[in-house]
Amino acid sequence: MPDSAGRLAVVGLGPGDPAYLCERARDELHNAQTVIGYRAYCEQVTDFWPDAPVEPWPIGAEVERATEAVRRARAGERIAVVSSGDAGVYGMAGLVLDVLYDLGWDGERNPEVEIVPGITAALAAAARLGAPLGVDFAAVSLSDLLVPWETIERRLHAVADGDLALAIYNARSAGRPESLDRALRILRAQRPGTTPAALVHDVCRPGERVDITTLGDLDPTAATMTTLVIVGCSTTRRRGRHLVTSRPYARRSAP
Amino acid sequence: MPDSAGRLAVVGLGPGDPAYLCERARDELHNAQTVIGYRAYCEQVTDFWPDAPVEPWPIGAEVERATEAVRRARAGERIAVVSSGDAGVYGMAGLVLDVLYDLGWDGERNPEVEIVPGITAALAAAARLGAPLGVDFAAVSLSDLLVPWETIERRLHAVADGDLALAIYNARSAGRPESLDRALRILRAQRPGTTPAALVHDVCRPGERVDITTLGDLDPTAATMTTLVIVGCSTTRRRGRHLVTSRPYARRSAP
Repeated sequence: MPDSAGRLAVVGLGPGDPAYLCERARDELHNAQTVIGYRAYCEQVTDFWPDAPVEPWPIGAEVERATEAVRRARAGERIAVVSSGDAGVYGMAGLVLDVLYDLGWDGERNPEVEIVPGITAALAAAARLGAPLGVDFAAVSLSDLLVPWETIERRLHAVADGDLALAIYNARSAGRPESLDRALRILRAQRPGTTPAALVHDVCRPGERVDITTLGDLDPTAATMTTLVIVGCSTTRRRGRHLVTSRPYARRSAP
Repeated sequence: MPDSAGRLAVVGLGPGDPAYLCERARDELHNAQTVIGYRAYCEQVTDFWPDAPVEPWPIGAEVERATEAVRRARAGERIAVVSSGDAGVYGMAGLVLDVLYDLGWDGERNPEVEIVPGITAALAAAARLGAPLGVDFAAVSLSDLLVPWETIERRLHAVADGDLALAIYNARSAGRPESLDRALRILRAQRPGTTPAALVHDVCRPGERVDITTLGDLDPTAATMTTLVIVGCSTTRRRGRHLVTSRPYARRSAP
């Protein structure tokens, strides 16, 4: 039996390239006896740390993965659960906490828990584009595996009503090729077709590619499972190869 | 005269503690001949790199700062412009790009430009709280210095309509002590008072403090100029000292 309490870190790995990983995340990974995650995220760790003690899991076994991580941390092991991007945005952090509390965890010890934030895909994609999320924005996922499509539609309508810039996660998956098309129809009904938009494919990964377009011309079939879609708001402008959502001072005072 | 083209990096420093800075950001800072930024952000650099070639600027001189950075990069200097958090979220990235293009920049060279993303305050605060932004969310700033208050209100109404979790930036400043109170009134009219909410003060900085409360009980006078406010959506729950916005699988399947 271990003589110290276990530790459970939920670590956001950032968008891909380890150069976008923070030191705190690296430290938690190096401190862990086992790194548990979906296979592709374990590979993201072994890409920069080949000997990492990873335990790759298949996709879709999130509850089992979280439960196993919690069980072992409670037994005294130092575990890191990894998500891409930010572990708290469409990642594993919430599920791990739910499992912990469901098992009667006191919120403090046995295990100690740390959620380490990371650079979520929307921020990485936005940086490649310039500053399309420079003022107020929303993030909405089009995955209706776990959220009803009606809720997603309601959120898209709200984002359009509120003139928020928008980052679309899970814009396309094999099982739902039509969801981006449906989302674009909602946005187009409320926002001009000339609104700047972009697809950022494989951000911070090999093959990264940026397509700048407009809401009217955005081709939903151009999105893949690793595409982040950004749609601007009324103050987003295309400037050369960039998209910028500025606060007004930029336009008022720039020389 | 320099014999090579200048470089202009716009670097997000993360929330404060340099452990949350990515390697790419460090590299751009170390590569720069001059680091230009608001005084407090220059101090954030010298905290971990005491000899950094910082050029601190007063607050409120954003256009002048961006213009000077662009001028010197075009003259061949390697410049880093720093923002806290993510430079593309309420930061300097958009303004720097606007100034560049206004001066006829071709989008590619002279200077080379790189926007380096960072961990924005909403993500850092969310990690401290657990995973309140775990599904769809919005970020809205209450600063009406550059955005009309009517636009801010419209966005808050939309966020409430869309049942999005919300991160509130610039929740309070000396000049507008009442804006958080006004924002809360809008949210309370559309969302139950029992909705989990939190104030995260000085996240990732000395004196960091978390107050978990509810939308109904949130005291707007408890926010300071360095407080990030988070208000949950209908699926956000308080669990011990954490807030979690889960996708439904967590509740369905956790043991």
